[in-house]
Amino acid sequence: MTVGIGIAGAGTIGGALVRRLIDERAAVVAKTGLDLEVRAVAVGDLAKPRPFTVPDGVMTDRPLDLIDDPRIDLIVELIGGTGIAGDLVMGALRAGKPVVTANKELVAARGPALWAAAEAAGADLLFEAAVGGGIPIIRPLSETLAGERIVRVLGIVNGTTNYILSRMADDGATYADALAAAQGLGYAEPDPTADVSGADATSKATILAGLAFGAWIDSAAVHREGIEGIRRADIGFAADLGYVIKLLAVAERTADGVSVRVHPAMVPVRHPLASIRGATNAVFIEGGAVGELLLAGPGAGRGPTTTAVLGDVIDAARGVLAHARVTPRIKIEPADAADFGSIATKWYIRLEVEDRPGVLAAIAAAFGDHGVSIKSVRQEGRGDRATVLVVTHRAPEARQRAAVAAIAGLDVVAEVGAVFRVESDEA
Amino acid sequence: MTVGIGIAGAGTIGGALVRRLIDERAAVVAKTGLDLEVRAVAVGDLAKPRPFTVPDGVMTDRPLDLIDDPRIDLIVELIGGTGIAGDLVMGALRAGKPVVTANKELVAARGPALWAAAEAAGADLLFEAAVGGGIPIIRPLSETLAGERIVRVLGIVNGTTNYILSRMADDGATYADALAAAQGLGYAEPDPTADVSGADATSKATILAGLAFGAWIDSAAVHREGIEGIRRADIGFAADLGYVIKLLAVAERTADGVSVRVHPAMVPVRHPLASIRGATNAVFIEGGAVGELLLAGPGAGRGPTTTAVLGDVIDAARGVLAHARVTPRIKIEPADAADFGSIATKWYIRLEVEDRPGVLAAIAAAFGDHGVSIKSVRQEGRGDRATVLVVTHRAPEARQRAAVAAIAGLDVVAEVGAVFRVESDEA
Repeated sequence: MTVGIGIAGAGTIGGALVRRLIDERAAVVAKTGLDLEVRAVAVGDLAKPRPFTVPDGVMTDRPLDLIDDPRIDLIVELIGGTGIAGDLVMGALRAGKPVVTANKELVAARGPALWAAAEAAGADLLFEAAVGGGIPIIRPLSETLAGERIVRVLGIVNGTTNYILSRMADDGATYADALAAAQGLGYAEPDPTADVSGADATSKATILAGLAFGAWIDSAAVHREGIEGIRRADIGFAADLGYVIKLLAVAERTADGVSVRVHPAMVPVRHPLASIRGATNAVFIEGGAVGELLLAGPGAGRGPTTTAVLGDVIDAARGVLAHARVTPRIKIEPADAADFGSIATKWYIRLEVEDRPGVLAAIAAAFGDHGVSIKSVRQEGRGDRATVLVVTHRAPEARQRAAVAAIAGLDVVAEVGAVFRVESDEA
Repeated sequence: MTVGIGIAGAGTIGGALVRRLIDERAAVVAKTGLDLEVRAVAVGDLAKPRPFTVPDGVMTDRPLDLIDDPRIDLIVELIGGTGIAGDLVMGALRAGKPVVTANKELVAARGPALWAAAEAAGADLLFEAAVGGGIPIIRPLSETLAGERIVRVLGIVNGTTNYILSRMADDGATYADALAAAQGLGYAEPDPTADVSGADATSKATILAGLAFGAWIDSAAVHREGIEGIRRADIGFAADLGYVIKLLAVAERTADGVSVRVHPAMVPVRHPLASIRGATNAVFIEGGAVGELLLAGPGAGRGPTTTAVLGDVIDAARGVLAHARVTPRIKIEPADAADFGSIATKWYIRLEVEDRPGVLAAIAAAFGDHGVSIKSVRQEGRGDRATVLVVTHRAPEARQRAAVAAIAGLDVVAEVGAVFRVESDEA
């Protein structure tokens, strides 16, 4: 009943996985009846010290050799990226070997090809850790909710940006200070672009949309805005209005097709996502029959991610011994994203204006001219300038943009200081 | 690729399931590749009108006939209870037929025997809907977290009691009024005992403990307290002290073994479970590596429960076509519950006392004599009587009880008004 495991990549997660497979081998046998043996660990640099000890012959610097190694029953890809990792995963699946990966970038970039290869060979591809770290998301979406008509998925799927926004909201930190704090804690990379630009969240949004709606929207077609431009002032105004600003991955079924987008959004304080603080991740799922589900927990980090990978390894090993697939067929068809201009959302707009009579009338007229109706307006004067905060009712993106462009062109408007979409259930 | 489904029980959930299997048959084929055909529906009364139409010959009043019916590939048990439902589930598993059930009472009463039968015959037994309705809990615990050392599971797993406690906390309703409101909305039965006594939550606690720790504690050995005695005053005092009162199912690994208990508890307002309101359920899982997970959503109701059952049916049907089990082996050994007297918790005690010098000293001395140290004391006088609220540090149940018994015997103490355990991470 021994299953031979080959692990490619022994960085933070890979190293921790090897340790847990060795240290907890007897415990896993006791709990699951499966004896998991680490038979190969592929690394870039054989000379580098590792936080584990394996028998001679286990370490290798040739990851692709795992594919045809008859001692290896299943492969765990923890190299990352889409290069050699992609060759390894694709090669293993084509050879009929089950693969476990935590690589959201690879799944987002080549998902349909990987699933097709898995399907053709009858091999399992598991990737629970690719979205939401230790939070169970992939199985709930693809198994528990297989019979549900999902309407919308809202996710806080990037811990770095949620940490930064939480520090700004809770401690009044500036963006720069909060980013520096995140870097100090190791939550953010020295070059934080992939996180703060929303690129990481976009990979996850693509995967979530695929699983929720069976529609594969190319990541490049996902509307994406990062958090780099968010100012403390807007976080304060949002709080005054009863909202919290979060970077959301949104996937929803609309009349025009599936819409996928990543952008900062104002979330009502009583919404379950509003209370998700720090590096925690959460996915909020709305379905026609099931109602609202919230799945929350640590979205990254060595312990949680390794637990998710290990759960997948145990599942895949079950399949190895049963000579059967354990995961459902993932049936995702390529689809065009819904036209972003037609997606209706509520907007928050901060305007810096001259404080004189007629300003509000001119602004309101511009919204009206574009068919956008206003939900609330708040004006705060300071000397000869004033800040106007407008929250609109729901209207298509294209009309909101046209209205704001028209307002930006008004003589009395000095600056469109900020624009955020507002996620709420109200019209 | 057609899988024959037999459904026993066509009440709220059964009726909805039959409808969805019929109405959404083509959609399920498109999404999963599985063609699910309803071939038998067993009911108690064939003459009763049903919210669905099936071909002649599908309705039957002999549920046990489904076991040997060769047209039936998998059986869905939605009769409830442990009588005929138990015979059906056990008979089907022994015959090697996969079973889906939402019956927490049956799983809690006969889990180990059912899993043994499933194991012996190589048949799947799926029961995602038995705990937490539409919330994915069974798969996350038994699959995603298969490699995790779970430390503690805290659940709000009974929607009726959570609704009642929410009404009392949010609207100041009395217990009687909140119960009546729950009955008016159909959340509580005319005889609400199974819910308000904690019996329903106890079944679910047993199942959660089994899956989390591989230890089967007989439901009869689970310490259980209901919500019947909770007074509005204590909910108010709890709020003043920064807590919310919830009926919790607690399963935890202790030095003395696995402890399982169901009782009202004070939860800090910032704890994720504190914000779970109304009929919503939530399960909070703490693991050594994974950290803290929260899974929340509708814990009951036709739509969510039917979605969970349908997800299980789809999974089981996959197994039918693959001639393989899709669920992991559930390996749960009978175990004795940890001695309840040795379980350390913090207590909140409300005392009605005479308002005269020396009262607090006498109370404090009684705690000290029993080795219980006090975290906070608050006294509110009104005339010659006063209310004293004590929150202790963590101490074993037996010592807490002895201290409170000694205090109850003090001349100056008119009444021990209420006692609640406090769930918090602090000592």
